[in-house]
Amino acid sequence: MVPKKKILDILGAYDLKNLTIATVCSHSSLQIFHGARKEGFKTLGIAIGREPKFYGAFPLAKPDKFMVLNSYQEIPDIVEKLKEENAVIIPHGSFVEYLGHKKFEELEIPTFGNRAVLEWESDREKSRQWLESAGIEMPMKFDDPRKIDRPVLVKFYGAKGGKGFFIAKNYEEFMAVNPQERYTIQEYVIGTRYYIHYFYSPIKEEGYKLSKGTLELLGMDRRDEANIDEVYKVGSIERLRELGWRQTFVVTGNVEVVMRESLLPKVLEMGEKVVERSFQLFGGMIGPFCLETIVTDELKIKVFEISARIVAGTNVAVGGSPYSELVEPGMSTGRRIAREIKIAAEKHRLEEIIS
Amino acid sequence: MVPKKKILDILGAYDLKNLTIATVCSHSSLQIFHGARKEGFKTLGIAIGREPKFYGAFPLAKPDKFMVLNSYQEIPDIVEKLKEENAVIIPHGSFVEYLGHKKFEELEIPTFGNRAVLEWESDREKSRQWLESAGIEMPMKFDDPRKIDRPVLVKFYGAKGGKGFFIAKNYEEFMAVNPQERYTIQEYVIGTRYYIHYFYSPIKEEGYKLSKGTLELLGMDRRDEANIDEVYKVGSIERLRELGWRQTFVVTGNVEVVMRESLLPKVLEMGEKVVERSFQLFGGMIGPFCLETIVTDELKIKVFEISARIVAGTNVAVGGSPYSELVEPGMSTGRRIAREIKIAAEKHRLEEIIS
Amino acid sequence: MVPKKKILDILGAYDLKNLTIATVCSHSSLQIFHGARKEGFKTLGIAIGREPKFYGAFPLAKPDKFMVLNSYQEIPDIVEKLKEENAVIIPHGSFVEYLGHKKFEELEIPTFGNRAVLEWESDREKSRQWLESAGIEMPMKFDDPRKIDRPVLVKFYGAKGGKGFFIAKNYEEFMAVNPQERYTIQEYVIGTRYYIHYFYSPIKEEGYKLSKGTLELLGMDRRDEANIDEVYKVGSIERLRELGWRQTFVVTGNVEVVMRESLLPKVLEMGEKVVERSFQLFGGMIGPFCLETIVTDELKIKVFEISARIVAGTNVAVGGSPYSELVEPGMSTGRRIAREIKIAAEKHRLEEIIS
Repeated sequence: MVPKKKILDILGAYDLKNLTIATVCSHSSLQIFHGARKEGFKTLGIAIGREPKFYGAFPLAKPDKFMVLNSYQEIPDIVEKLKEENAVIIPHGSFVEYLGHKKFEELEIPTFGNRAVLEWESDREKSRQWLESAGIEMPMKFDDPRKIDRPVLVKFYGAKGGKGFFIAKNYEEFMAVNPQERYTIQEYVIGTRYYIHYFYSPIKEEGYKLSKGTLELLGMDRRDEANIDEVYKVGSIERLRELGWRQTFVVTGNVEVVMRESLLPKVLEMGEKVVERSFQLFGGMIGPFCLETIVTDELKIKVFEISARIVAGTNVAVGGSPYSELVEPGMSTGRRIAREIKIAAEKHRLEEIIS
Repeated sequence: MVPKKKILDILGAYDLKNLTIATVCSHSSLQIFHGARKEGFKTLGIAIGREPKFYGAFPLAKPDKFMVLNSYQEIPDIVEKLKEENAVIIPHGSFVEYLGHKKFEELEIPTFGNRAVLEWESDREKSRQWLESAGIEMPMKFDDPRKIDRPVLVKFYGAKGGKGFFIAKNYEEFMAVNPQERYTIQEYVIGTRYYIHYFYSPIKEEGYKLSKGTLELLGMDRRDEANIDEVYKVGSIERLRELGWRQTFVVTGNVEVVMRESLLPKVLEMGEKVVERSFQLFGGMIGPFCLETIVTDELKIKVFEISARIVAGTNVAVGGSPYSELVEPGMSTGRRIAREIKIAAEKHRLEEIIS
Repeated sequence: MVPKKKILDILGAYDLKNLTIATVCSHSSLQIFHGARKEGFKTLGIAIGREPKFYGAFPLAKPDKFMVLNSYQEIPDIVEKLKEENAVIIPHGSFVEYLGHKKFEELEIPTFGNRAVLEWESDREKSRQWLESAGIEMPMKFDDPRKIDRPVLVKFYGAKGGKGFFIAKNYEEFMAVNPQERYTIQEYVIGTRYYIHYFYSPIKEEGYKLSKGTLELLGMDRRDEANIDEVYKVGSIERLRELGWRQTFVVTGNVEVVMRESLLPKVLEMGEKVVERSFQLFGGMIGPFCLETIVTDELKIKVFEISARIVAGTNVAVGGSPYSELVEPGMSTGRRIAREIKIAAEKHRLEEIIS
């Protein structure tokens, strides 16, 4: 990981009244650029191959400038140019994935949030350790198929790239399939899905207070997944297999949802616990994060994953959500990030939100 | 029921320029407080155990003041304190449920809407009588299983609290299950679900006119229900049972929807009939109500339930809906309630909307 | 088709500072009138039987004037009256359907868009020819059931009006049903559905540029269809049939969706190709159109239909969408149409967008 000292030195040389918000042209970049412009920042898009044409359709989200590379692997090579722009990088899921974890961690340019979170978020074991030690309920994990005592989801990783899975209710059902590939076994929790968009600010003082700073709830979405969300049309899962298909879970888009209000105290407590624990474990998770949850018919909320940065599901709320309406009308997660950087710069507290 | 005279006496002593909107901290309280603040009211939240922390996350919806009780049963004890605040209570579903019907009816404090509706709404027989006598189409009810002549939904009430049901197409299929518990039999109507958010004002003169006052359409949602809305993922209902589960219908949240425009004339007529009939039956239903409907593939709208107050589904439209945009941009049901009280107070017509 | 010259002569006699936006009172008329009013136009609703009452509920969308007819067939008879109002007709799906293609094409009144598109859009063969020759991927069509080599959707047209269909994976399965009615066979594509709302302007110069003019993306929805979208609740498709029902696909409403950002470049390219090709084939498609797509788990976008005018799905975005927020906050398709007419009138370029 690039030493914080190095990043602070770079920041020290920046013209803080003239910062540029930069990110890779994908995922939630429209929202990020749109929000940055609303907060008065210059914007810069990192693109591959050529200047993307599609931003032309979105004049309020088109970055002021592009840097065009041959591949994401070249991002480290433009660090000097980015510094000249006083650029702060907003990492989103595709940014980190395309560049690679290691290279992202080593990138010598100020980046919004704490890059140390990546190690804890990207490793399934460590993220489970983080969440469970924070008191979050997750679906149980089974290391030994003989111990299956409830419906489980068995995911296996085949040649075609990890799309297979089946449901088993005991060892007999597991053995009936007996996957000869690598697999994981996890309790199958049935219920409706809510992807909760939080924002943690170490700087803001008024609101839902944590040990330090405050927590916000900016929205919720549900992912659309192909083909699982249309499987019911073919008749049954047996029929799906007969047709030569498997259930797959590829995210193609998102729908906005709201959750039963009586669950919101729990929702905020969950966010609180995860943030507080992150400070104990690795110096804290800063800015937007998402808990991906299932709400059961007993109104229990189970978390099956955490994303420690802006998720694409926030794109449902570019113009605000029913929740952000109660914070500041029209506030998106993208804009909230820009606002945080603006306030931190004004208060000379950028070192608390940048790594 | 508390006599209207008593409520009017209390109102008579109120400082009408200084009213407080009060409700229980759950269900749709964020929306209610948010709307009340937008209309210039003070707000008061009735909470159990301790001051809820989660409002901190929603600065535009946090009540100005809290009254903290040990249980909802203590609400009648704070009536005097509520009067000192010039409080008008906004009842929502959880308010009525937690306090209990009887105690709610006897509460000696001005309450938005006509409390006489509760008797007609909460009893399945009476609500059917109300709606059917208003000319609303509902799924048929069968008292005798031998008369089943179409697909029906048989709901039975087991030890675990009313979660079981099955579908039968005739007496033979009914007898194959032959529930040994209490059950109801209702025509099974297949189609898409729309929860329609209406607002009836006896005071507003311009708009969709009824015998007296006007009717508005402020939005629509669809409920998310666990686990029924995710059952398709396990493969089939047989498989669900094999896994040890039953279909359940617990509302966990909501999604915003719009309905085919050609059905809107019918939608408004349905609302009109229900309101007009309510005046004949019990002095009228005032303010927000919801018809819970199924639209069939023949574009018939069947109503399976009515809620005679603000429903939680309106939370999808805290910042306005595609329908309220055509009435007044940004108008939520919570805000519309506050607006109604404001106008009634200004016009000295509060007695028409309060009980 | 009415000669362009005739339409231009009528336009020549219009008071261009005093135009009226007119349409039939259904489908997306609330949105069209609402948008027209926002852009400063007078509005006129063509209604059947009597002045519709339901507009009373939507004061910001109620047309200034109504023309009440006994049947849609009388629309040609009011052409002179419409001219007196300086009326420009906005055709929507119901308008064209109710009036009939032939009569619509012959209507001697200025109409937004290019009426020549109707011939290409309404004929399944010609629309396939248009889209495929534009480079758009569509589900394969099979003329001979013996050539079925993948899952296909067999739609047949029975006495009851075209609701039947089944899925077959080969000739054997096809023959097991062996429909004795007229049928079509089309590749069955499994994935999530996105109905993409585009707007093509030959006049606007800034934005996503085409050979001439620019392309916008104003929103996306998913259709709600009865009863297919609730079939999963009865258990299986076999069970559905046992209950005496068939799967049906009747649109009852819409839900707003957003698509994975990484697909947007492709989405705009698809729109671009379809517009460019339309100029080669029939003088161009003007204004709003919709590509009805399925996104597969390999993130391919297949188009199963095109609508060459405002679709009812745009009603989810009367107050703006997450996409239009990036173009101009609060911009709906209905309002965009009015804006286009306003700008064209100001620039004396109405002939480019009217036929």
